Formats: sequence, structure tokens, C-alpha cells
Amino acid sequence: MSGTAFIGLGMMGQGMARNMLSKGIALRGFDLNAAARTRFANFGGTACVTAALAAQGCDMVFVMVQTAAQARQVLFADGVAAALDPQSVIVLCSTISASDMRRISAEVAAIGHDLLAAPVSGGQVGADAGTLTIMASGPERAMKKALPALQAVAKKVHQLGTDPGLGATYKVVHQLAAGVHLVAAAELMALGVKAGCDPHKLYEIVSSSAGNSWMFGDRAPRMMEADPRATSSVDIFLKDMSLVLQTGEETGVPLPLAQAAFQMLKAAGEMGCGPSDDSTVVRAYEEVTGAVVHKAITE
Amino acid sequence: MSGTAFIGLGMMGQGMARNMLSKGIALRGFDLNAAARTRFANFGGTACVTAALAAQGCDMVFVMVQTAAQARQVLFADGVAAALDPQSVIVLCSTISASDMRRISAEVAAIGHDLLAAPVSGGQVGADAGTLTIMASGPERAMKKALPALQAVAKKVHQLGTDPGLGATYKVVHQLAAGVHLVAAAELMALGVKAGCDPHKLYEIVSSSAGNSWMFGDRAPRMMEADPRATSSVDIFLKDMSLVLQTGEETGVPLPLAQAAFQMLKAAGEMGCGPSDDSTVVRAYEEVTGAVVHKAITE
Repeated sequence: MSGTAFIGLGMMGQGMARNMLSKGIALRGFDLNAAARTRFANFGGTACVTAALAAQGCDMVFVMVQTAAQARQVLFADGVAAALDPQSVIVLCSTISASDMRRISAEVAAIGHDLLAAPVSGGQVGADAGTLTIMASGPERAMKKALPALQAVAKKVHQLGTDPGLGATYKVVHQLAAGVHLVAAAELMALGVKAGCDPHKLYEIVSSSAGNSWMFGDRAPRMMEADPRATSSVDIFLKDMSLVLQTGEETGVPLPLAQAAFQMLKAAGEMGCGPSDDSTVVRAYEEVTGAVVHKAITE
Repeated sequence: MSGTAFIGLGMMGQGMARNMLSKGIALRGFDLNAAARTRFANFGGTACVTAALAAQGCDMVFVMVQTAAQARQVLFADGVAAALDPQSVIVLCSTISASDMRRISAEVAAIGHDLLAAPVSGGQVGADAGTLTIMASGPERAMKKALPALQAVAKKVHQLGTDPGLGATYKVVHQLAAGVHLVAAAELMALGVKAGCDPHKLYEIVSSSAGNSWMFGDRAPRMMEADPRATSSVDIFLKDMSLVLQTGEETGVPLPLAQAAFQMLKAAGEMGCGPSDDSTVVRAYEEVTGAVVHKAITE
């Protein structure tokens, strides 16, 4: 009897796993963090103490880690690919470059498994609510097998063909908008406060008019908090924007907006905000201008 | 008996005037363009052959022109302020700087009228549908008098206090987001096409996930058109982004994203797209990269 495993029960993975469990998909799971394993067990998952143990006896595994290096570590160094049943399906949900996705797919194929690229959009909110957007591509057999579990966590699964690089490409290109909109929200809030606007009124106006973006609506309120809960970190967005810039390099597209956004995220990272919520990119503008967007000082 | 005038019946003004007329507000109107005057008359307005004639016998005038220089031309050189009844209300809907708005307000006050700043957001679509967002500020008497007509064209009228500079400030700061999101949409579409994405599929994915913005949803489809109808021009956005950068200068806020967006709009302008729909900023990316986002060549 074969099962399904889920490796990486962090800010994104925990919600995804919980939604699969709640829809009747039995899961074995692993995360390096013991608290994450306990939480997973409390939701009804079978928590395992190594990634390979979680994969043991499974013919499908979802991998939700942050980088290509981590994915390769889990699959090959930690023994997940070897522990799976023969001809299993590996669903890689991480945001990584198309070239990394294709390389890992080839490595996985060489040992008899199929890789489905399935990066997601929607953040922790979407993962928790089961309303992610998924950009999936890979062999048809893998798509068919993974689809029910993906649909359990998504409002929409885009099926983008058999090339695993395509799912990665759509996701990385999509991140250009998310990253630029995030930093634009910070730039706008800092300018508004310095120019005499009330930040809450400014938020109300922009979020209900042509200046709105999904990221503005989601992140600007957290920019007004002194200590926002981290749902996705500055470091993760630095990684994502690096992938965007890498794609521009590889395809010959100058990306002045993405580059500017990257540099402001870098400034926030250098200030020590790397592990903090990505909304703290506003601190880079506050530091330079003296604008106070976050509440701690305005209240 | 006193009436209401509307000066500037262009892409924004025509829809606003039509919505006022359809809600029973009688209007005298003027535009430099004879076809605009005829259209206005066909909707039931009283078209006049000069701005001063339109203002004659009125105690309120709406002015929807593109720049502060044009507003001053209409009000003072063309004789609108002099033709109005004493103690009239002038509602200036243009996107201009806070300093220009305050200066014109003072000039208007010196001859006995009140100025209400009432810049709008929502584009031609919002003007036509009567769903604009209005950022209004100025003397209470002017706000009270203008409110019913403003509500006839808006889903929301934000009342931002008595300083006419505030309405201008909120609008200009808002434009930072709209302008950056516009150019980000072009940058994303060019990158996506070069990286192998289908532009229509990319639009579908981004517009339904965390990368979405109001501008992306509205402009990206026009970026895929060979010859989009001009609803707001590259030149107008160049003017708006100049105001954003000027506000950054005046308040001491570095604006790397707004500056990058301005430069790409400038590139499109230099290519001859100035009078074209602002979605043609994508041509600047196409020219440099060879990406073909618009349909004419892909089909």
C-alpha cells in the first residue's frame, strides 16, 4: 500500500498539509523543526523524524522548501528519492529557477521518478485558506496523480504543459510583480507620510482605487504595525527577486523596476530585517527619510 | 438664477459631465475641441464656444484639464474666474502638485471665490461608469456645495480637510503606485514572453493571484493589442510621475521605483508613444528585447 509524504511544514507547507489532511488525504510528514512536526501530528498527520522515513512506502511526495539547494538536499542527500517506491511522483512546490527545476527533473527521471513542478502563489494566507494559485508543469502521469492533492489546497491549478521549467518560469515571472508591488507599497507609504498624509487614510484611498495591488492590500497594513508577524520574510523575497533578475539575465531583458525593488529589499536585509516579515522593507525608507509609517512611534 | 459649468470635456471630463447630466445636474460646458462640445450637447449639456461664456451666470465650475498651466489659463487668461458670479466655487479636478493647488487656491480666494481640490482616480473607465474615487479638500462651504455633483460621478468622495493641497497630495502619492504598477506590468509581460510564457496565459495567472494590481488587470490586456485605444496617454503619466518625483524632492524621499518607472515612460515617449495609450510603455521593452507582447506580430 502506497502513501503520500509532505516534506517542509513551514509557513507555507503547514497550511497546505493541513488542507490535504482535512480533505481526507493521509500524509506522512517531516520538517527540520520539531515544533512543526508536532503541529502536523496534531492536525492528524503521521510525523516522522527524518525525511527519508516520511518518504518510506510512499509513491508521491510534496516538497515545500525554500531553495533549489534545499530541494536537492532533501531529495538526494537526505535520501527521500531513494526511499520512495519505484516510479514515484515528486511534486516540487518551491519557487526556484526554470534551469534548476529542469536539472532536478532530469536527476529525478534518471532514477525512475517523475517530477512535477508546482510552485504556488497566495502566501501564508492562501496556504491556510486553501486558496493558492498553482503553476504546475511536468509529465502527464505526474500531473494526473498529483492533481487531486493540489486541488485540495488551491483555488486554481494552472496546467502548463509537460516541461517542468514552465511552471517555474511562470512563477518567477509572476514574482516580478509581487516584489515590485511590495516595494512600491513601502515607497508610497513613506512618501505619503513625509508629504503630510495620514497613513491609514492613505491606505484606505489607495487600496480602493486604481493604485491598488494585491500586495498593497495585504502588506501595507503590516507596514503600519510596529512588529508584524512574519508570514514571508525579506530573505525569501530577496531570493525570489534574485531569480527574477537571473531570468532577465538569461533571456536578455533589462529589468529596471525589479532591480530597484531588489536593491531596496537588500537595504532592508542589511539593516537586519532579513528574517522579518517582508513588509519591513518599509524600514529601509523610514531609516533614510525619517518617515514613520509604523504605529509604534505614531501612536 | 445660478448654474454649473464644466470646462474640459476630454477623456475624463466627458464621462463625468455625462453622469452629472444624467443625474439631473444642468451643465453649461466648454472644450477647445469642437467634437467634444457637440458630444456634450448631444448628452443634454449647453455647449458654449468659449470657457468664459460657459461660466457666465454660474456659481460653480468644474475644471478638468491636464496641467496647472492649463488650469490657470482657463481660470484667469480665458476669463472663467471673472465671468463667474461673485463668491463662486471652483472645483479643480486636475492632477497637479500640492504647491500649484495651494497657489491657485490663493489666487482664486483673492478675487472672492473658493477653490475645492478634487483630483480623481479610476481612469476613463471610472469616469464613464461614474465610479471614480475623488480626493477632495478645500473650504467647507466649497465642499458642501460641490459634494452632490462629485457624488454623481464617484463611488467614493474622500473629504480630506480644508487645505486644498491635501487632495492634490493624496492624488499625487497615489499615482506613484499606479505608475509603478503600469510599468511593472510591461516589464513582466516582456520578461514572460522572452522566457517562453504565453502572454494570455501569463495574464490569466498573474491577474488572478498575488501579482495582480488594478493597473495590471486594466492595462496588460491593452499591452497585447496592436493598436490600443488611448484612454490615458503616456504623456499624461509622464506628467503625473514628474509630480511624484517633485513631491519626493520637496519632502526628501528617494524614490527608486518611481524614478525607474518614469525613465521607462520617458523611453516610450522618446520612441513616439507620447500621445498613445499609456499601455504602450510596453513598446520600450519590446524595442530593446525583441519580445513581442502585442498581438499584431504574434498572430
